[in-house]
Amino acid sequence: MKLVTFEIGGKVCAGFLDGDAVVTCASGPDAGNAVRDLVSGASGSLADWKAKADARHPVSDVQLLAPIPEPRRDIFCVGKNYRAHAAEFHSSGFDTTAKAAVPSDPVVFTKATTTVVGPDAEVRGSLDTTGTVDYEGELGVVIGTRAFQVSRDAAMDCIFGYVIINDVTSRELQQKHNQWVIGKGIDTFCPMGPWLVTADEAGDPRAMQLETTINTEVRQKASVADLIFDIPTLISTISQTMTLLPGDIIATGTPEGVGIGFKPPRYLIAGDIMEVSISGLGRLTNRIV
Amino acid sequence: MKLVTFEIGGKVCAGFLDGDAVVTCASGPDAGNAVRDLVSGASGSLADWKAKADARHPVSDVQLLAPIPEPRRDIFCVGKNYRAHAAEFHSSGFDTTAKAAVPSDPVVFTKATTTVVGPDAEVRGSLDTTGTVDYEGELGVVIGTRAFQVSRDAAMDCIFGYVIINDVTSRELQQKHNQWVIGKGIDTFCPMGPWLVTADEAGDPRAMQLETTINTEVRQKASVADLIFDIPTLISTISQTMTLLPGDIIATGTPEGVGIGFKPPRYLIAGDIMEVSISGLGRLTNRIV
Repeated sequence: MKLVTFEIGGKVCAGFLDGDAVVTCASGPDAGNAVRDLVSGASGSLADWKAKADARHPVSDVQLLAPIPEPRRDIFCVGKNYRAHAAEFHSSGFDTTAKAAVPSDPVVFTKATTTVVGPDAEVRGSLDTTGTVDYEGELGVVIGTRAFQVSRDAAMDCIFGYVIINDVTSRELQQKHNQWVIGKGIDTFCPMGPWLVTADEAGDPRAMQLETTINTEVRQKASVADLIFDIPTLISTISQTMTLLPGDIIATGTPEGVGIGFKPPRYLIAGDIMEVSISGLGRLTNRIV
Repeated sequence: MKLVTFEIGGKVCAGFLDGDAVVTCASGPDAGNAVRDLVSGASGSLADWKAKADARHPVSDVQLLAPIPEPRRDIFCVGKNYRAHAAEFHSSGFDTTAKAAVPSDPVVFTKATTTVVGPDAEVRGSLDTTGTVDYEGELGVVIGTRAFQVSRDAAMDCIFGYVIINDVTSRELQQKHNQWVIGKGIDTFCPMGPWLVTADEAGDPRAMQLETTINTEVRQKASVADLIFDIPTLISTISQTMTLLPGDIIATGTPEGVGIGFKPPRYLIAGDIMEVSISGLGRLTNRIV
């Protein structure tokens, strides 16, 4: 199932995608958190969700929001998790925090909840006064169960579904503050969507292909199979010492082709259109302002 | 006012400290989040809170919990924010992520919500299989208003209150994963309490003295006035690009005297008792298991 949160007539609703239509399963004041509550099991099963099906609108008549507009807590992200990207980042001069290009262990940081925006939302590049805004197309994994010390073998069972994430970054602030929370945490710097695809429908993530275009020019093109630390390894590693919660999101890292991979770097400017697509998960489009 | 969350007879309640007693202002299923909701203004003013005063218990009859047992999102923390500590950390060999001992800009990272425990709670040092558990006594600032692009001059007005935090850390995991989320994010590695003191009662934080003892041996002793980046600078810096939310907590950094400051390092082992005290904020005691 493709879960959606959307706005129509100034009202936030949540439901699922059915062909070219969105079907409403939740409305009212808490609808913005309905998908999050569904993931956490707080509002019943997917079957219960489907049974609530109500109003139906052409998807072109609604404004999709991030499927989880307000995550339960900050988003886990993985740095330098595709080999060629690790090399391009290391040689860019911005990777001041590591000796080796390819990390020996997963590099995990967080993006604040306040970074999240949905499809077609504006990304406020002007908030980065250093003028070094960069894109990072990524596969996001949504955790569906409370998970502690999960083995690699059991890790995939903890996944509720998948969503596209664009880990927009200020390269200067990322470097200047040493740890990446500020450079990665700027308001609106985490486009997410267009929908959250449940694990059963999404299939094996290793078969997914990711592509990022800037103003229609292809910049990133990679297979999720090429992750250095694969999804079972990420879930197992993080959960060895930290309890993962239902609704937690792990952005698994970005492949080669970001703006600082070019010499000179090609930073984003107002008006640029970023599009990240992943096979089976749709396309996420956002404009820099 | 000193806000408390506590357990009595298996029931979680919240209220305030009055001399040697705790006064109950909230009970029932949501009491664990009552202080968080009070901070965010969702449940009225401090006067409203006081007006709800009900059952009264000697503080010795209850088990205090963290005043905010489940923060709204991950805790902001500041690294290397006292000069002598920045030097000891840099010379320890664990500061692989920076060229200079004293940072030019605030180093901000996060601790997961699942790290939080209260006074007297056990800290599960055994989860760090590298055997490099270390303490970091810190002043925590609790934000009381939605804050974006706040000036240094206006920053203190955003503060709801203060609380002691012990930023317990696995030094090996901190280093190994490059970014600090894993090494700082282990379950139970964020003791917080014993109470949240409102800004009016706490007074000027620059006058606060911090002391950390391990098994009664004084290890850290410093004045909050010695912060490299003071509290207005931290709030102003973070809020330049990120919206701070009511209930957000900023742990402001730890002074000299942590375990890796010794040669050889003095890591914590099972049975060790950590005590962090800050003048006006009480004393936070936790045992390593």
